[in-house]
Amino acid sequence: MTLPTTPCLMLDLDALERNIARMADHARAHGLALRPHAKTHKSRAIAELQSKAGASGICCATLHEAEQLAGAARSILLTSPVVTADAFARIASLVSGGIDLAVVVDHASVVPALAAALPAGGRLRVLVDVDPGSGRTGVASPTDAVALAGAISADARLAYGGLQFYCGSEQHIASLAERRAAIAARNVKLAETIAALEAAGFAPPVVTGGGTGTHGIDAEAGLLTELQCGSYIFMDQDYGACDLGGAAPFEQALTLHATVVSASYPGFVTLDAGTKAIATDAGEPRVLAGAPIDSRYRFKGDEFGRLDLPAGTIAPEVGARVVLMPSHCDPTVNLHGLYHLQRGGEPVGVWPAEGRGYGAIREP
Amino acid sequence: MTLPTTPCLMLDLDALERNIARMADHARAHGLALRPHAKTHKSRAIAELQSKAGASGICCATLHEAEQLAGAARSILLTSPVVTADAFARIASLVSGGIDLAVVVDHASVVPALAAALPAGGRLRVLVDVDPGSGRTGVASPTDAVALAGAISADARLAYGGLQFYCGSEQHIASLAERRAAIAARNVKLAETIAALEAAGFAPPVVTGGGTGTHGIDAEAGLLTELQCGSYIFMDQDYGACDLGGAAPFEQALTLHATVVSASYPGFVTLDAGTKAIATDAGEPRVLAGAPIDSRYRFKGDEFGRLDLPAGTIAPEVGARVVLMPSHCDPTVNLHGLYHLQRGGEPVGVWPAEGRGYGAIREP
Repeated sequence: MTLPTTPCLMLDLDALERNIARMADHARAHGLALRPHAKTHKSRAIAELQSKAGASGICCATLHEAEQLAGAARSILLTSPVVTADAFARIASLVSGGIDLAVVVDHASVVPALAAALPAGGRLRVLVDVDPGSGRTGVASPTDAVALAGAISADARLAYGGLQFYCGSEQHIASLAERRAAIAARNVKLAETIAALEAAGFAPPVVTGGGTGTHGIDAEAGLLTELQCGSYIFMDQDYGACDLGGAAPFEQALTLHATVVSASYPGFVTLDAGTKAIATDAGEPRVLAGAPIDSRYRFKGDEFGRLDLPAGTIAPEVGARVVLMPSHCDPTVNLHGLYHLQRGGEPVGVWPAEGRGYGAIREP
Repeated sequence: MTLPTTPCLMLDLDALERNIARMADHARAHGLALRPHAKTHKSRAIAELQSKAGASGICCATLHEAEQLAGAARSILLTSPVVTADAFARIASLVSGGIDLAVVVDHASVVPALAAALPAGGRLRVLVDVDPGSGRTGVASPTDAVALAGAISADARLAYGGLQFYCGSEQHIASLAERRAAIAARNVKLAETIAALEAAGFAPPVVTGGGTGTHGIDAEAGLLTELQCGSYIFMDQDYGACDLGGAAPFEQALTLHATVVSASYPGFVTLDAGTKAIATDAGEPRVLAGAPIDSRYRFKGDEFGRLDLPAGTIAPEVGARVVLMPSHCDPTVNLHGLYHLQRGGEPVGVWPAEGRGYGAIREP
């Protein structure tokens, strides 16, 4: 069979399915709900596989993802705070359509407008987003969390859903011991927040957070009721460098295929995959096949990457295919419209990433 | 009128049209053909505006761009070397469809297969891509250029089209004097290559290259016959920092609109635009409006950016709109499916970026 045109994402379905099963087993064994984050894959087909494996629902980072993946999972949690009238209208539309939806807020000023936008009788769970100390989103303190839970609970049009506590940067700490210590430090605030909510009569029905990097640590800590892991399905260089505990539990399922388009000099070749094909935010990709694995990739503009070859190795020829491990899977997926699928190295079809980007044309 | 949902690209049509006219005037005044690079905009509507202003055609970086923008310009030059059978088939399909197409090659091994893929009687111009010293694509030496021009000319199915000499990294040297000196150094090789081709009987009918950063310098040097400038239509922080000579000739036409989604602490707010909305390869975007202009943006993951506010300034509120200048326009456009248009600050519609990404679903 013909291999697809490069640059392209290639997804190994066997490895994907094993990764999905392993995280589902982990959550089940620890009595945790698993709500995989769909910001990683943005794909209905993958959300459906995760649902079949027992996921309680999915997380989405954007309303566009939620709209595109609605119906592919039991329920959806929108993990980014919603603040605008436009967002409230789109949420109301999803609720009207029968989607079991939850959102997070971190500012009381949005609560009345969000509630007012909902259809009569529509049910929307609203969670308090608590900042673990990242300085990104979430209320600053347990006191603020109680006040916001009170504002949500006081509005009969909303259902108080609990709290979100997502430690983003801690996911990527390479050392397991250091990652465990960092989460333990963050969890002091989480425990205080849960206690403050309980004391005020707002015991959180759901405490959601965690990720691929901390899935084992979060299970040990026993504070979260639900895991939001995303990247475990694909893996990437960033998570590949993390000691996730025990034998490496997840396999590299997602790769980037590129082609050698220039080989005019000894010592390096140029690939057709640059910053438009591979996200740059977590460094350079690594070579997995098709060129010496110690070759070093460097970004060379939107369309090109340069592969510096180790001394004494044989350069791949013009037209040769090189397989790379992306450094950061989520934003790399966002650059591509679809996944090319393979089993046993053979192409078996494509899946679109329906939720990528910010949506199709909508007239303002 | 309602402003579009953020994060989104906003394009000021008045500024765009003035930028298009200014570069067209520059090329005309210097007797140069202008073949704007569509990798910047990936838009049929903008290619048509450039054509109306006198462009001899457009450049495309990918076959997907060429396929999507075919017919929106007099002719298309594909500026990335083509090497695979799949690419040859797509080129043949464009030629069969009557598109006036030119491609570049930098390796003799591809010439016979490219020629063999063409339809009988199909006309394809093939240019020799010459590396100016960037180590990205192009033949290494004048001798190699002559050999490749010979291979192209010897094949009756191909039309020798001249040479491409694109100095990419030099475009972004901030100082005009240093940029001029860098191009002068590169142009030694260009002059030698032209002379070698002429001496061998392969006088190049077209010498194409240049960009927004060197459009004035290239006109002075007198070696190029055709300019490939792209970013001048939008501008960005990277080019905004370049002294392009004389009064700033091009205006910032493209901006990124974001919304404050969190403001839990004094001193900073969080925006809904992160690495999925703004390309990271050229640094952080700058604030143009909606927040203190000395605020400092920092990427905070796929969906978020943090805006650190200068001491003593008033923070924008949750829900407020902030206007940013992207650091690098081309890959930022690639993250978005469309342009929201405005004139005089009022929304006036949308244009798709048809050529972004790597294409719609094609079964392998």
